[in-house]
Amino acid sequence: MLPINLADKLSQFSSHWSPRIVSGFNGNDVMVVKLKGEFTWHSHPDTDDLFLVLKGILTIRLRDGDVQLGPGELYVVPRGVEHCPFAEEEVHLLLIEPAGTPNTGDVATAVLKEFI
Amino acid sequence: MLPINLADKLSQFSSHWSPRIVSGFNGNDVMVVKLKGEFTWHSHPDTDDLFLVLKGILTIRLRDGDVQLGPGELYVVPRGVEHCPFAEEEVHLLLIEPAGTPNTGDVATAVLKEFI
Repeated sequence: MLPINLADKLSQFSSHWSPRIVSGFNGNDVMVVKLKGEFTWHSHPDTDDLFLVLKGILTIRLRDGDVQLGPGELYVVPRGVEHCPFAEEEVHLLLIEPAGTPNTGDVATAVLKEFI
Repeated sequence: MLPINLADKLSQFSSHWSPRIVSGFNGNDVMVVKLKGEFTWHSHPDTDDLFLVLKGILTIRLRDGDVQLGPGELYVVPRGVEHCPFAEEEVHLLLIEPAGTPNTGDVATAVLKEFI
C-alpha cells in the first residue's frame, strides 16, 4: 500500500507526448505525461479532457483563444471541443481520461499508453 | 477561458472536511478540500476514491494498514474498501468523485459540497 509519487513516475521516462498510466479510477486512466512543442489539433467526441500542470507552463490552444496553465492549475476541455496543447519548454502534466481514449482523438494515430 | 488555480481556490475557505467543487469531468466533481484531524471510517460501494495531496501529509487508514502521502502523491481507494483519512496537521487535497457521492459514504451524514 504505497502512494503513487508523480515526480518519481515522471523521472522514469524522457519521451514527449507519450502518456504513462500510473493508476486507475472508475475505468479512467490516471496518467502522467511530458510535453514539449506543439501537438495536433484534435477533439474527443465522447469525453472531457482533464489537464493538471505539475511543472512548467502549458498552453491549450482553443478555436476561441488560448488558456495558459502553470503548476497547480487545471483545465477541463469539454468533449467535442477542438484543442491543441503547446509547450515552449517541457511541461509535466497529470491527465485523466477514460481507459482507451486515443490521445490524438483518432485511434489510427494515437500512441499506446504504457503502464509505469 | 481561465485556468483553475487550486491554491487560489483553497485560499478562499478555511473549514475542514468540506470539499469545494472547482470543476467537472464526465459527471465527476473535481474538488479541493482541507483536512485536519480524523474523519470517520467509511467506504463508497459504487466508486473508487482518488486522493491527490497538494500540501501537507495525509494518512489514509485502511483495515490492512496505513498509506501516507505527501505533496505530489496520489492514492486511489478502491470501491467498497473501508478507509479513514487522518491528518495530524492541515493537509490540502484534490479529490475526484462522481457528482453526488456522499463524503461519508452515507447521504444522511454527508456534507453538502459547495461550488467555489
